[in-house]
Amino acid sequence: MKDTIQVGLLGLGTVGTGVIEILHNNKESIKHKTGCEVKVKKALVHDLHKDRNLPGDSVELTDKYEDITDDPEIDVIVEVMGGVEHTLNVLLGAIENKKHIVSANKDLVAEHGEALFDAAVRNQTDLYYEASVAGGIPIIRSIVDGLSSDNIRKMMGIVNGTTNYILTKMSQDGSDFDEVLKEAQELGFAEADPTADVDGLDAARKMTILSILGFSMPTRLEDVKLKGIRGMSTADIDYADKLGYAIKLIGIAEHDEEGISLSVEPSLLPKSHPLSNVNDEYNAVYVYGDAVGETMFYGPGAGKGPTATAIVSDLIAVVKNIQLGTTGNNYVHPQHDRKLKSKADTYTKKYIRLHVLDQPGILMELTRVFAEKDISFDQIIQQPADSHEERELMMVTHSVNEEAFESAMEALEQLPSVRSVDSVFRVEGGDN
Amino acid sequence: MKDTIQVGLLGLGTVGTGVIEILHNNKESIKHKTGCEVKVKKALVHDLHKDRNLPGDSVELTDKYEDITDDPEIDVIVEVMGGVEHTLNVLLGAIENKKHIVSANKDLVAEHGEALFDAAVRNQTDLYYEASVAGGIPIIRSIVDGLSSDNIRKMMGIVNGTTNYILTKMSQDGSDFDEVLKEAQELGFAEADPTADVDGLDAARKMTILSILGFSMPTRLEDVKLKGIRGMSTADIDYADKLGYAIKLIGIAEHDEEGISLSVEPSLLPKSHPLSNVNDEYNAVYVYGDAVGETMFYGPGAGKGPTATAIVSDLIAVVKNIQLGTTGNNYVHPQHDRKLKSKADTYTKKYIRLHVLDQPGILMELTRVFAEKDISFDQIIQQPADSHEERELMMVTHSVNEEAFESAMEALEQLPSVRSVDSVFRVEGGDN
Repeated sequence: MKDTIQVGLLGLGTVGTGVIEILHNNKESIKHKTGCEVKVKKALVHDLHKDRNLPGDSVELTDKYEDITDDPEIDVIVEVMGGVEHTLNVLLGAIENKKHIVSANKDLVAEHGEALFDAAVRNQTDLYYEASVAGGIPIIRSIVDGLSSDNIRKMMGIVNGTTNYILTKMSQDGSDFDEVLKEAQELGFAEADPTADVDGLDAARKMTILSILGFSMPTRLEDVKLKGIRGMSTADIDYADKLGYAIKLIGIAEHDEEGISLSVEPSLLPKSHPLSNVNDEYNAVYVYGDAVGETMFYGPGAGKGPTATAIVSDLIAVVKNIQLGTTGNNYVHPQHDRKLKSKADTYTKKYIRLHVLDQPGILMELTRVFAEKDISFDQIIQQPADSHEERELMMVTHSVNEEAFESAMEALEQLPSVRSVDSVFRVEGGDN
Repeated sequence: MKDTIQVGLLGLGTVGTGVIEILHNNKESIKHKTGCEVKVKKALVHDLHKDRNLPGDSVELTDKYEDITDDPEIDVIVEVMGGVEHTLNVLLGAIENKKHIVSANKDLVAEHGEALFDAAVRNQTDLYYEASVAGGIPIIRSIVDGLSSDNIRKMMGIVNGTTNYILTKMSQDGSDFDEVLKEAQELGFAEADPTADVDGLDAARKMTILSILGFSMPTRLEDVKLKGIRGMSTADIDYADKLGYAIKLIGIAEHDEEGISLSVEPSLLPKSHPLSNVNDEYNAVYVYGDAVGETMFYGPGAGKGPTATAIVSDLIAVVKNIQLGTTGNNYVHPQHDRKLKSKADTYTKKYIRLHVLDQPGILMELTRVFAEKDISFDQIIQQPADSHEERELMMVTHSVNEEAFESAMEALEQLPSVRSVDSVFRVEGGDN
């Protein structure tokens, strides 16, 4: 066993600096846990001359990544520089040099996970990426360690703080989407360009990584059925409330004999469901396992402290593996082949809001269209619309087949009495 | 490093059998993680002749614990036999023989933790007890591993399934305490003798263990301020609901410069607080750390699957430590001396329900008693009582000093206009 494990740091921004600080502040405790010293030897930076004020032993700075990935004394590379294509090439090269990798880069892992896993398996190296999802929630460590002897069936997550903040404020204050988004940008809860958050891409990346780990299957970002919250109407939030639900942007990863299904979409959750009470910028992941039943992990989704903590936790795991001679094992690399579930095998509940003409027999006409596709309803609310000739309808179905539902909705839109289909959302977390 | 680590099992009931099953079913994955084989060599049983049908390699059965604790080939002892005084002696003997211990025995750890920790430290052995608290929630592993580089300030837990089930049903159905307790006993959610659950002792044991681990301080069961839910009134549950709160049996462990405070008592939680929506027999622990902020872990509190899973997870940690040469380190043995906070340093919000005479000036008289002790109110509800001469009052204070509150309550009970003080509960989880 080694006395010292040397680490190379790709990137030295806030998170990278946080990693050095934690390693320094917890030097003794890390030695106790791993039986050796963990030392950052080199760090990749843009500007070699910037004043950095790092604690502890001096770290060699370089602006050439090869100085780090080719250094035979470095065992583990911590990647906190971000970026996708260039970073992928740098890490693939490092893996060929038998370096173990810890990465906090969710874009990279969600988009190029398979290439990285393949390289790591071929080279028998470790590849850890807990920090890439929900930094403050020790969810991945829990799935991989705590629930590793269980069979995970379903994961439901509120994994994007920005959208959860927006939906919480819309629900609490009754303000409309654009107004709340602007406020969130002013408060720093939303980026100037909020696209990746608001349209669900960030959540989709995190759900991809959660499903890779939870189901041990190399799922891809493109497997995620994706719908964001842009233009979400306060009307739906109010009606959902009346029906006993909260609307949240929920990522759902399910696994059964037919394969897996992955989605990120605004969904109605019963108010009694623990996820429906996760508010503001908080994140949470609900996990259903055969042995453990239902478990939920709740915490802040991001931030320097949580992310750096998660990286160091991954780093300690890698160092332990090096000392135990168990690197490159199957627990962070997917064990199963990717198998997706077809629409024909997928069943969910749906919420629909629509405007219809105020004429006798309308409701019968509507329900007949659904009945023909074997779709029945759990709740229906009918009420006058703003216009006198129209009525507004909110309907919640029982569990329906995804294909049948789509074809019923097509038939519905053909009906002359249907003025507009305003919203269609998934309903989750209750009985079907 | 060893090829095989041999384990001795003290007890072979449902949980012990579950441990053997998990070790057998996950043989390969455990080898991948630890670099060696983990094998149960011997098990202690009452009846040597009972048919057991265990999977995997044959396990030697014995009815003499010394056969296990004195066996030089056995490295780790898993204790799942329960009991306190006798079990303590058996484990202390085993520790003197340099055996590492994994125990699921919360009564033992809560009552005799210090003796066990001292012996383990002296003998440089490991002592793991995650499974003793909230089996299904990987909370202890998360605190010890995931949050080990953080400074934990406060833990709030719903850690007893029976009482949470009773309070949930009382709140949802409006049934009274005795009725729901009887129903819970019939459904198997409460023991025939429900004392340890209903009076809060079970929750107090778990909070003691959580605070030992979270604060790394050898706290004792006797340090817990304890009040159960026996005789809880539906009136309080209803009033709390009107004021925007749920009543839960909450264990609270707090740590600041003055020391720690530990309590288990029925408390009012704002409905917006994630813990207030933990219902039925579920458990949850809310943790506040300096770096991570707020995190919550939610899951089933008990059961064969969760408990055996937690034990195997502890066992894997011990085996890794043996291989790394890092057993007997400080992370499961308390690092700090026990230091309790005095009442004079403790501040909480309170809910009071009382009956007063229906006379002018009563409210002024009451609030004067409190104002003299610097206690002011956040919410007051006054309404007619069943008797025409009386009124019922519900009051929620701002944060108050514990000593000042006690002396105000004494003064209050002296007032001729106060007919009865019906309930006093802690209020938690909101702003002070």
